[in-house]
Amino acid sequence: MIAETPQPPYYAVIFTSIRTEVENGYANMADRMLELAQKQEGFLGYETAREEIGITVSYWRDQDSIRNWKNNIEHSFARDKGRSDWYKAFKTRIAKVEKEYGFLKEDFC
Amino acid sequence: MIAETPQPPYYAVIFTSIRTEVENGYANMADRMLELAQKQEGFLGYETAREEIGITVSYWRDQDSIRNWKNNIEHSFARDKGRSDWYKAFKTRIAKVEKEYGFLKEDFC
Repeated sequence: MIAETPQPPYYAVIFTSIRTEVENGYANMADRMLELAQKQEGFLGYETAREEIGITVSYWRDQDSIRNWKNNIEHSFARDKGRSDWYKAFKTRIAKVEKEYGFLKEDFC
Repeated sequence: MIAETPQPPYYAVIFTSIRTEVENGYANMADRMLELAQKQEGFLGYETAREEIGITVSYWRDQDSIRNWKNNIEHSFARDKGRSDWYKAFKTRIAKVEKEYGFLKEDFC
């Protein structure tokens, strides 16, 4: 779903990736990382989709929240496995959301 | 593919959407918008994927480039059609990319 984020400013981590063919626990780890991230102080929500490339955007209150998540031990282990097994390439961008606007059809909940 | 963007700072427009069942020219319009965006001054690249939700991130040199693209006549027409026909909901976030880092396997081009 589309993340319900607060009034800007807040932060977005845009993670774009291309997967290898290797499964080796990827789906479980992806679920686990999501579960862990949601427990982090300052986590605001996320959006994800994968076709030719995968895009996961997670939203955070501030840079400190992102730094703490980056330094999480399990997350660091997952990143190492990402480099060795799961990803051919990825890019992470840290961005400060300055404006946000949306649209919602009346009959859509 | 993963967009080849310059050294930050630059801007990201994160467009997250949920489609209706209505086709009515959507695919053609999506292609046309991409073609048009690529001709805009300050356009740096884009990434897109759709599953349950669609995420398209376009990258821009500065806020002026984003504003010019927003005011493009054909783009405005497409946005109106988006609201009436193609989308149940969407959210647009304008964010300033402050940091970027990546990973590329040696045998992957």
